Amino acid sequence: LVERMRAFGTTIFTEMSALAVRSGSINLGQGFPDTDGPPEMLAAAAAALRDGANQYPPLPGIPALRNLIAAHEQRFWGLTRDPDTEVVVTAGATEAIAAAILGLCETGDEVVTFEPYYDSYAASITLAGARRRPVTLRPGPHGRYGFDEAELRAAFGPRTRLVLLNSPHNPTGKVFTRAELTLIAELCQEYDAYAVTDEVYEHLVFTDAAEPHTPLASLPGMHDRTLRISSAGKTFSCTGWKVGWATGPATLVSTVLRVKQFLTFVNAGPLQPAVAVALGLPDTYFSGFRAALQARRDRLVAGLTEAGFAVQPSEGTYFVTADITPLGGTDGVDFCRDLPARSGVVAVPTQVFYDNKEAGRHLIRFAFCKREEVIDEAARRLAKI
Amino acid sequence: LVERMRAFGTTIFTEMSALAVRSGSINLGQGFPDTDGPPEMLAAAAAALRDGANQYPPLPGIPALRNLIAAHEQRFWGLTRDPDTEVVVTAGATEAIAAAILGLCETGDEVVTFEPYYDSYAASITLAGARRRPVTLRPGPHGRYGFDEAELRAAFGPRTRLVLLNSPHNPTGKVFTRAELTLIAELCQEYDAYAVTDEVYEHLVFTDAAEPHTPLASLPGMHDRTLRISSAGKTFSCTGWKVGWATGPATLVSTVLRVKQFLTFVNAGPLQPAVAVALGLPDTYFSGFRAALQARRDRLVAGLTEAGFAVQPSEGTYFVTADITPLGGTDGVDFCRDLPARSGVVAVPTQVFYDNKEAGRHLIRFAFCKREEVIDEAARRLAKI
Ligand SMILES: CSCCC(=O)C(=O)O
Ligand SMILES: CSCCC(=O)C(=O)O
Repeated sequence: LVERMRAFGTTIFTEMSALAVRSGSINLGQGFPDTDGPPEMLAAAAAALRDGANQYPPLPGIPALRNLIAAHEQRFWGLTRDPDTEVVVTAGATEAIAAAILGLCETGDEVVTFEPYYDSYAASITLAGARRRPVTLRPGPHGRYGFDEAELRAAFGPRTRLVLLNSPHNPTGKVFTRAELTLIAELCQEYDAYAVTDEVYEHLVFTDAAEPHTPLASLPGMHDRTLRISSAGKTFSCTGWKVGWATGPATLVSTVLRVKQFLTFVNAGPLQPAVAVALGLPDTYFSGFRAALQARRDRLVAGLTEAGFAVQPSEGTYFVTADITPLGGTDGVDFCRDLPARSGVVAVPTQVFYDNKEAGRHLIRFAFCKREEVIDEAARRLAKI
Repeated sequence: LVERMRAFGTTIFTEMSALAVRSGSINLGQGFPDTDGPPEMLAAAAAALRDGANQYPPLPGIPALRNLIAAHEQRFWGLTRDPDTEVVVTAGATEAIAAAILGLCETGDEVVTFEPYYDSYAASITLAGARRRPVTLRPGPHGRYGFDEAELRAAFGPRTRLVLLNSPHNPTGKVFTRAELTLIAELCQEYDAYAVTDEVYEHLVFTDAAEPHTPLASLPGMHDRTLRISSAGKTFSCTGWKVGWATGPATLVSTVLRVKQFLTFVNAGPLQPAVAVALGLPDTYFSGFRAALQARRDRLVAGLTEAGFAVQPSEGTYFVTADITPLGGTDGVDFCRDLPARSGVVAVPTQVFYDNKEAGRHLIRFAFCKREEVIDEAARRLAKI
């Protein structure tokens, strides 16, 4: 393995999911649902397999899917993109992130991001020979995460190439506020930086969030410098399909295309038409999905609180963060390694998503995208520790 | 777009397939079949969709598929690999190639490859900051392609990190002989270099080839330094599924895993069990598929010869190369750009796969992985030029 990648081991998700299988535990680590997405989508995939959508789709994705991606952005976020030049289908959000960073960052360029961060961010930045400039999110009023304006300003500089923003935010469940986004947008413009936004949880902002989800691309001055990334996996409960996309100005979309054609070329031929069907589902699908996940969050939060964790507020995503201090825990990595044997439940230590390990040492993440009986059983098991 | 990638435009396949659609031409450019793969495989994919294989598969691929990949290598090539540590499922051969090169090549390392080469090779090498050392394949006795031993020796040096070998070879249809492979194997060992082999056409070596297909990994000393890449797309006529794999010593497979987890993470959840079924089909499937493609090759070669092209021998793959000189052509790029308007057929200029443009200026490539009536219609159209 090349020297620059040696710092990156096997992702924590793989390690903890393997541990879940080995120990027969309930896996509340890796974020994947245990029920499959809308029947209309599954039926459309079966039809596509049968009707011969099995050869290479066009490099940017099939037109039907690009059209629906653009229509979906218009419908929910009021963003206007040309499906022919401003939309590209990718192998999940992960490929879109990798291709954007590899395509935009010269050696030595800097990427401003917020920690804790999803682990592929750091790896893609490193692969590109760029440097990450993390800004630490910390719990503030009402326990909601925020960041220090001075720390964000200090992270920008002459080598800043882009800001990589994840909102709704994994693992904290934070939804960035309009005031925070406005500051980020101003700094992007001041430093002439691009923004790459990972919005895979765009439909999972709960009713008690401080504010609804706002795409950074919708802020003044940002439409033409933001690449917005999302995917079908989280919204339509098909994480294994790996159908994602990026939308943005043609220059940024073309950068993604020019790199992605050599990472995977294309993917998921027979699944692309099915995701187009899913994106066209009525608003009630999206609101129903959100309500179902919110109920599961509440159920898990109650169980975790009962078990003695100090649970942080989660405004969105599949995840909730718990402080292990009240249970006598000091290090989340040790705690998560022991948890399966102690309780038959798997969680993920948030610490691994920080450069600043101290900030996350005592925190662990649980996924609540599971059937209610699974959440209840996990709560029963955790009550014993 | 970063400076290093500017030399790479949109792949020729995308350009020519778009031209085929715009001009309503028969597309003998990009290599994809116009009929879909084995019914057992398609039925297994439909079953997997229904039975809930829709969430993240394990990072290296589902165990059933890894087992069948290992069993397939044993059955056809006598290679023994441990499915748990020596096999990884990828998003097509393309991702395996990108991950291997990004994972193995430090800045300034050199990769020996043979030109004409599949276009993602050069791009992946450049993305890694490595340098390609192409060795030119040239027509020799009986018109079959070979290379100059001195030229190959000269391409190796102290910075050689790996040899990237494609056999059966796209676009020429060359199948590397045991004597050639032996020389390559000796040089790999002399320079302590790895080999990465792209063998996606492993089952398409025709009965009139000089020799059967030999994996480089099966030569003395190569088992522990070769990463062998293949995919389902070409063998099972499902190019849009993008299910590929790499097999090799655990160190090389782990290098691929460590990079690929950040390029796509995983892919094709519900298609993985179906490819496992396909890999387990009886030998008659593979021999029948080869015989069908050989008959199509013969049909297309007859038509091209009739139309006035000087057709080169194709021992394998989906492709045959034609010299445009007898038709008054001098530049394959110009010829292929004009061909749709002149004849309603799309081909690909081989020139774009060479660093040494002169060697391929007069050559174009046709795909024969099409229904017989399509090949016949293409031949009729080409007869008019
Ligand atoms: C790479 S699998 C990770 C899935 C996910 O998004 C998460 O669990 O955070
Ligand atoms: C990137 S699409 C190319 C398909 C193929 O292998 C070819 O046509 O050579």
